[in-house]
Amino acid sequence: MAEGPKKAIRRSTFMEVPYLSDPHRNLMVDLTSTVETRLDSQLLPCTLPENVRYFENQNGTSHATLYLRSGISSSPLEEILTVEICSVLKDLRPLLTSELEKIDFLSGIWIHSELPTGGELNITSLAMYLNSSTDAPNFTMDLILSSPTSLILYLNLLPRKDLVLHPDYLNTFYQDTELETQRQLLDKIPEVRPYFSPSLYVRSLLSPTAIMVRIEAEAAERMEEIIREHVHPVAKEALRIWMDQCACVKREVSQTERDYLRKRDEVVKTNTIEADLASSLLRLFGPETADRVQAAIRAVYFST
Amino acid sequence: MAEGPKKAIRRSTFMEVPYLSDPHRNLMVDLTSTVETRLDSQLLPCTLPENVRYFENQNGTSHATLYLRSGISSSPLEEILTVEICSVLKDLRPLLTSELEKIDFLSGIWIHSELPTGGELNITSLAMYLNSSTDAPNFTMDLILSSPTSLILYLNLLPRKDLVLHPDYLNTFYQDTELETQRQLLDKIPEVRPYFSPSLYVRSLLSPTAIMVRIEAEAAERMEEIIREHVHPVAKEALRIWMDQCACVKREVSQTERDYLRKRDEVVKTNTIEADLASSLLRLFGPETADRVQAAIRAVYFST
Repeated sequence: MAEGPKKAIRRSTFMEVPYLSDPHRNLMVDLTSTVETRLDSQLLPCTLPENVRYFENQNGTSHATLYLRSGISSSPLEEILTVEICSVLKDLRPLLTSELEKIDFLSGIWIHSELPTGGELNITSLAMYLNSSTDAPNFTMDLILSSPTSLILYLNLLPRKDLVLHPDYLNTFYQDTELETQRQLLDKIPEVRPYFSPSLYVRSLLSPTAIMVRIEAEAAERMEEIIREHVHPVAKEALRIWMDQCACVKREVSQTERDYLRKRDEVVKTNTIEADLASSLLRLFGPETADRVQAAIRAVYFST
Repeated sequence: MAEGPKKAIRRSTFMEVPYLSDPHRNLMVDLTSTVETRLDSQLLPCTLPENVRYFENQNGTSHATLYLRSGISSSPLEEILTVEICSVLKDLRPLLTSELEKIDFLSGIWIHSELPTGGELNITSLAMYLNSSTDAPNFTMDLILSSPTSLILYLNLLPRKDLVLHPDYLNTFYQDTELETQRQLLDKIPEVRPYFSPSLYVRSLLSPTAIMVRIEAEAAERMEEIIREHVHPVAKEALRIWMDQCACVKREVSQTERDYLRKRDEVVKTNTIEADLASSLLRLFGPETADRVQAAIRAVYFST
């Protein structure tokens, strides 16, 4: 081949990252484009600098692409309007941003790393967070392949309220949506086992229908088959449920509830970056790159 | 034997229920008496009427004993003081009830039922709830044996705050207490598999270190061995952690937090009775007995 994967990844957009198996890439491309097609009008373009959209470590063994799109209604007015008319129109913002605009941000990250053991680590992640105009759950999905035959799958409609205190919320978004059917479909595959994250905080984010499993296949071909035949349709259906019954449904949210949602979302975002992402970035890319990437993520996560 | 088990159960106290295997009974007796010895000064005697302490269904195929002890500081003053001095001393209550009295109630229920299929169902449950003077977790443990070789074990330090919003609470009661070690000990037993309750509400009550497993043994002897060698020590250690690091630790709780805890606890109790216990009681004992028992439970659960 004239071009190595490193060169290929530099030129690539978020969805053209090499290294992944076809079924894995197809899953990520399908889900990302399904969301972007449906919610495009609510999303600003990705404005990340080039050295955050793609980054690697010093010796070139780890590569990653990051993709972040803020929701229109979650972004500072300056990003949408010129500074001159910004102050005049500030009070009119509720009229400018439609009630339908509920997206806080869409985030995608794909990481590839050559392991010292000779193996390869591939992580792909897709998340859509809603803003405080709705209390509906967020969508998060991570696939962590520590080898071509070993996958950890995390697929969660992340609750934005304390489910114990709000059984009606549990019924609306988890019972009535029949998300449990999807969890059970995957649970039937012989290679699928429940997985317990070493982070108790990550566990506490799991809804009662969350999928947190380890899949160990005998061969790479079987893993590809499992992703294509089982993981993909389950993830697609969970995404459809999220779009139809969470992201695009109008909810009555009082000002007190909005303040509560903002605070709770902030704790989740902070802990997700600090407890979960920070250590991986530091380990795989070193402190300088990790800091730069985290700063860029924080700028989008905490833009409101 | 001159006496059948039915006669034996009528005479028995809570901890002398027949039908259970020795290791299962020993576990329940050990845990209950450990708690009662340590926290006896905080507990009132069980004042349930005879037909609630023991009850059965019409054709005598289902039997149960119920045991409820209110915490001193959670009980109406009338139960502690004579009516005459009650009104005078009402305002002095905070001085009368020590800061150390944190127990809301201790509850135990043991159910035995002959199944239409010819098998036997044995359920034993032990729970200690704390009152709103502390935000520390409650202790709950259920063993559900649908046959001598099939057990569902639920062992949970039930969080009393939204863990997602309060990572410090998660650290104090779940990370620093190393409860996860106990979960992992059981997880290593070959017959142990994660179990998913059909009730999403029950799942939402689980802490990140909760044990919710199904144990399928090849023979009754092996199940007895697993309960004796593995379940018993793990449950005992979880109880020790709960007593040392939850029930007997002073926590600063503001009035606002107390109101919140009272409300959240009430939702949990209501749902535990209605979603979880009510259907079992109705199915096994019929509507009249189920109503009587539930009323008695409600009287203790909601006495404050």
